[in-house]
Amino acid sequence: MTGGTNELGRINGIIAEVIEEIGIAMGVGSQRIAIEKPEVRETFKIARRNAPNSPIIANLGAPQLTRGYGLKQIEEAVQMLEADAIAIHFNPSQEVFQPEGEPDYPMEILDKIRDVSKALSVPIIIKESSGGLSKEFVSLFYSNGFRYFDVSGQGGTSWVAVEMFRGLRRNNWKAESAKLFSDWGIPTAATIIETRVSAPDAFVIGSGGVRNGLEVVKSISLGANIGGFALPALKAAIRGKEALKQFLQQVIFEIKAAMFLIGSKTVRDVYKTPLVIHGPLRDWMESREISLSTFESVRKRRI
Amino acid sequence: MTGGTNELGRINGIIAEVIEEIGIAMGVGSQRIAIEKPEVRETFKIARRNAPNSPIIANLGAPQLTRGYGLKQIEEAVQMLEADAIAIHFNPSQEVFQPEGEPDYPMEILDKIRDVSKALSVPIIIKESSGGLSKEFVSLFYSNGFRYFDVSGQGGTSWVAVEMFRGLRRNNWKAESAKLFSDWGIPTAATIIETRVSAPDAFVIGSGGVRNGLEVVKSISLGANIGGFALPALKAAIRGKEALKQFLQQVIFEIKAAMFLIGSKTVRDVYKTPLVIHGPLRDWMESREISLSTFESVRKRRI
Amino acid sequence: MTGGTNELGRINGIIAEVIEEIGIAMGVGSQRIAIEKPEVRETFKIARRNAPNSPIIANLGAPQLTRGYGLKQIEEAVQMLEADAIAIHFNPSQEVFQPEGEPDYPMEILDKIRDVSKALSVPIIIKESSGGLSKEFVSLFYSNGFRYFDVSGQGGTSWVAVEMFRGLRRNNWKAESAKLFSDWGIPTAATIIETRVSAPDAFVIGSGGVRNGLEVVKSISLGANIGGFALPALKAAIRGKEALKQFLQQVIFEIKAAMFLIGSKTVRDVYKTPLVIHGPLRDWMESREISLSTFESVRKRRI
Amino acid sequence: MTGGTNELGRINGIIAEVIEEIGIAMGVGSQRIAIEKPEVRETFKIARRNAPNSPIIANLGAPQLTRGYGLKQIEEAVQMLEADAIAIHFNPSQEVFQPEGEPDYPMEILDKIRDVSKALSVPIIIKESSGGLSKEFVSLFYSNGFRYFDVSGQGGTSWVAVEMFRGLRRNNWKAESAKLFSDWGIPTAATIIETRVSAPDAFVIGSGGVRNGLEVVKSISLGANIGGFALPALKAAIRGKEALKQFLQQVIFEIKAAMFLIGSKTVRDVYKTPLVIHGPLRDWMESREISLSTFESVRKRRI
Ligand SMILES: Cc1cc2nc3c(=O)[nH]c(=O)nc-3n(C[C@H](O)[C@H](O)[C@H](O)COP(=O)(O)O)c2cc1C
Ligand SMILES: Cc1cc2nc3c(=O)[nH]c(=O)nc-3n(C[C@H](O)[C@H](O)[C@H](O)COP(=O)(O)O)c2cc1C
Ligand SMILES: Cc1cc2nc3c(=O)[nH]c(=O)nc-3n(C[C@H](O)[C@H](O)[C@H](O)COP(=O)(O)O)c2cc1C
Ligand SMILES: Cc1cc2nc3c(=O)[nH]c(=O)nc-3n(C[C@H](O)[C@H](O)[C@H](O)COP(=O)(O)O)c2cc1C
Repeated sequence: MTGGTNELGRINGIIAEVIEEIGIAMGVGSQRIAIEKPEVRETFKIARRNAPNSPIIANLGAPQLTRGYGLKQIEEAVQMLEADAIAIHFNPSQEVFQPEGEPDYPMEILDKIRDVSKALSVPIIIKESSGGLSKEFVSLFYSNGFRYFDVSGQGGTSWVAVEMFRGLRRNNWKAESAKLFSDWGIPTAATIIETRVSAPDAFVIGSGGVRNGLEVVKSISLGANIGGFALPALKAAIRGKEALKQFLQQVIFEIKAAMFLIGSKTVRDVYKTPLVIHGPLRDWMESREISLSTFESVRKRRI
Repeated sequence: MTGGTNELGRINGIIAEVIEEIGIAMGVGSQRIAIEKPEVRETFKIARRNAPNSPIIANLGAPQLTRGYGLKQIEEAVQMLEADAIAIHFNPSQEVFQPEGEPDYPMEILDKIRDVSKALSVPIIIKESSGGLSKEFVSLFYSNGFRYFDVSGQGGTSWVAVEMFRGLRRNNWKAESAKLFSDWGIPTAATIIETRVSAPDAFVIGSGGVRNGLEVVKSISLGANIGGFALPALKAAIRGKEALKQFLQQVIFEIKAAMFLIGSKTVRDVYKTPLVIHGPLRDWMESREISLSTFESVRKRRI
Repeated sequence: MTGGTNELGRINGIIAEVIEEIGIAMGVGSQRIAIEKPEVRETFKIARRNAPNSPIIANLGAPQLTRGYGLKQIEEAVQMLEADAIAIHFNPSQEVFQPEGEPDYPMEILDKIRDVSKALSVPIIIKESSGGLSKEFVSLFYSNGFRYFDVSGQGGTSWVAVEMFRGLRRNNWKAESAKLFSDWGIPTAATIIETRVSAPDAFVIGSGGVRNGLEVVKSISLGANIGGFALPALKAAIRGKEALKQFLQQVIFEIKAAMFLIGSKTVRDVYKTPLVIHGPLRDWMESREISLSTFESVRKRRI
Repeated sequence: MTGGTNELGRINGIIAEVIEEIGIAMGVGSQRIAIEKPEVRETFKIARRNAPNSPIIANLGAPQLTRGYGLKQIEEAVQMLEADAIAIHFNPSQEVFQPEGEPDYPMEILDKIRDVSKALSVPIIIKESSGGLSKEFVSLFYSNGFRYFDVSGQGGTSWVAVEMFRGLRRNNWKAESAKLFSDWGIPTAATIIETRVSAPDAFVIGSGGVRNGLEVVKSISLGANIGGFALPALKAAIRGKEALKQFLQQVIFEIKAAMFLIGSKTVRDVYKTPLVIHGPLRDWMESREISLSTFESVRKRRI
């Protein structure tokens, strides 16, 4: 969750408390507001205070890097949380439709991120926000040395849909266009495959519409190293600490159930579980020239 | 829009005004009526007057060429608009079902059009009207030197359906048969592919059911050079100049949004955007012996 | 239609009158009753009287041949109508479910039919009645010299469904089983392909669910030489001569419309019209080891 | 049916009486209760008393073998019924969701079953209970000498769904997770194929959602030696002896009908009946690297 208000800080605090108890990682929302208004940093810092031993991921938007941000701000974001990594997120489809959006992704961003990554003490995670990462995009970053990706595929939270509802309220004609694009993106299963194939030894977070433990295991079996989700955790956290804990315990139970049923004792075993891929995803792979055999060997041999 | 009445002239005028402002092209409807009744020419001429600097496409029906029309009438149609090109439209499926239709497409038409094209000062566009152009048909015209095609595929306005409703009103038994044929034709995506593959260096207009900017970009990515539409523009123009302008601006916004999201800075980049082709269209291509690799190379190398 | 009662004779008469006017062929229903009760022959003979110059097809059931029928009865059936051919029909799926059915198709039937065919003056048509002919069945008869087939595939009149309704009325438990089998059979498109591929130079009647002229043309394009139907013609004939004539004229109009739209001037051109075969029928062909290329060459080269 | 209460014993008795009359086999439910409480053995023994000449299959759960059961208990179960075979059932998906479940399948089970099988006088059937057997699982047992398998695939009784309803009643949060997994498993058609391909000369029982004679024949045509079902027989038996007899007679009628219609005089002929395999099952086979040709040859050559 991003911060900036007392309420958002409270939620960040709840999430942090729970992940510390349960033993999983969390990523905060964009820290841009805290870079710009130091007085709200507390709404982020609470995460580290409540989760002193857990992996925490800092977060900033890629467009900031073309608007003056550099190593200094990125380090600030990391230090604010004593973060273990920082996610630089891309969200072009939302930017197109938000009134305040300034959609522009010059190649310069890549250079900037690469330069920052060289000097930075923690790894950078290249992250989408609901549209999925493509083979081409991942290959570009991979060949520039990046090894962490969060796919955030189409099928879960749709930022374009959010803009559509905002636009409808304001009677904005762009709302109609937003409807057209509300399912824009690479479906999560497909983007996991594209990302894994383009970055064989990378660490891949499978996210975007992941809603339960069975889907976490499916994400991992398709090529992710771990699964992740935003909206369902947020909804539970708004209901309180107990609700979030209960939700996460259920997810963990489902992960264990699925692993038991496919005969996987370790996550590494999940990498090798046989898959049955049906029509539309097969068509996707074929059109994208990803052969089943290449996919299978990369999927099983990942680290 | 065709002309002939004051109302139709007014609509042609509105469309012309708007395209001149926005900077796109327009095609008028069949000018047969103006060839036959010089007194109504004004309802067409208004287009050029309102759009002095825009590309305007003249229009006549192919069947006229077997019923006495020749270079003289074609030139008249062109000159009436100081047109930049003339579309010769084919509409066999409507002709079958309209009471006044005289369906007949002798090979002679090809010879006639070819002869006219040699003497004509502007290019001829070979155009369907809702049924799509087939590989065989395009190849025939291509090998006879034609390089402009408007596919007008199945999926949008259905002239057979129009005849069906007309027939139902008159209690005509052909209305039932028209229902059978109301989805006759080659779907727009398929006809764009068939046309592009058969005419690698031609200029192809992707039309028939194109309803927004996303579909314009899909048409172009599949092999068209530009997208086109009739019914939605007409509906907007009937509501007035502002409505049409608003509609076209929305389309242009959507085109830009889609191009931005697929990372295409120019239309030429769209030619190369990767495609994912699903089941039914793949079946179509396979049955029509269009291999993915041939298609891909023609699609990307077009001019 | 079979005969035996005045009403059935009247219908046979109507059908015959109309086909004579329009210039098409007709097949009567099973003549078994007329073989067994000479006093009802008139209800069949009316067909030839009303259609002196049209092709008429006699009809007997294959099971009769294992129950005493032979050349004598077959010739009687033919002579009763001065028939141009005789259809020997198979209907195993109905026989299984009708209370009076004695399902039994010993290989002996093939021998009997072959012997009869050698002595008979007119050709024998091997005919199903709603379940379609399989590749294996057609090959067997083809290799024994038969060259006429009426596929009568699954998708139209279902005799098993008829038995189901009969059974439901009588509270017969077999009605439930009949429901299970009510869509038994080889779908019409598939059986036409199977028959054509197994009998490259045979005369094939495409029937079973053919309901309009477009479907007649589809049957022919898939491999039939002509299309045929029972139920819709019967329904129209029950409403009277005018209704039947009107129905058949509409079918002929639709045949012409479809042929015009695929650019076929002759039925022979239809043999060569390109086909697009979708998923389920492709699966069928692949499972049955009928390659697209074999099918295409047989389909186009048929006589 | 399992035993343990007078009511369950009565049902076992009814089933036994009917199968003895009709001439088919039966399997009882888990005999664990009778091993542990000798006083309820009578509720199983009634099966052999009522069906002195029929094949009867004893039954115990695989997990028992890691909790102290061994040759002694297995033999007891067999002798209790003078059984012709014993099914050792696996039911991991239910175990995960039942409150009293202790899901744990160590490799040790395989060793235990193999040791028992060497000393046991009757064959052991490796049996699932609603989730289907996978290629890998069958291969493991096959290479350890097992030759009898009961697939019990997904599509029929779902034990996870049973647990879901139980959980909902008790307001257990696991009920929600159970819903997620309620269609867990390998569909029956797919597990029959996987089992047959991995165990070419084994005896395979096709079960899981088999509901009528047509589905029995489909199971056999796909690779099973016989078909089996639990729930529908149980439902009928609860209604009484006559109801069960009537149900089984209907099934047998349907088996005969289907065999007649595919031209199979013997079950062995069914092995060779041509199959048409559609999209999803084809995708399954391809993803699991089971080629149509391997499948066909194993399917047809089985014993
Ligand atoms: C309320 C909300 C706020 C979000 N804010 C951010 C953000 O600031 N930075 C970011 O990288 N992603 C953000 N995301 C995107 C998520 O990280 C995630 O990629 C996306 O929601 C898809 O996952 P989901 O379907 O599980 O929600 C946000 C998501 C939600 C629902
Ligand atoms: C009202 C109307 C009139 C049309 N008249 C003509 C015409 O005269 N000449 C022609 O080539 N096409 C004519 N068309 C066909 C269009 O050019 C176009 O090919 C077809 O409508 C498919 O595009 P759409 O789905 O965007 O309407 C007409 C279409 C409409 C809706
Ligand atoms: C009322 C009725 C009676 C039929 N009687 C016979 C018959 O006696 N002999 C025969 O070969 N087929 C008979 N048929 C089958 C038809 O010839 C045809 O094969 C089948 O109905 C499928 O075609 P349809 O879907 O157009 O009805 C009969 C069909 C109908 C509807
Ligand atoms: C009420 C009931 C009790 C069952 N008990 C057992 C059992 O004790 N042992 C066993 O191996 N399977 C048992 N089964 C599973 C069945 O043997 C069978 O594998 C499964 O129900 C799928 O077949 P169906 O869809 O025809 O019911 C039971 C099934 C039912 C419906």
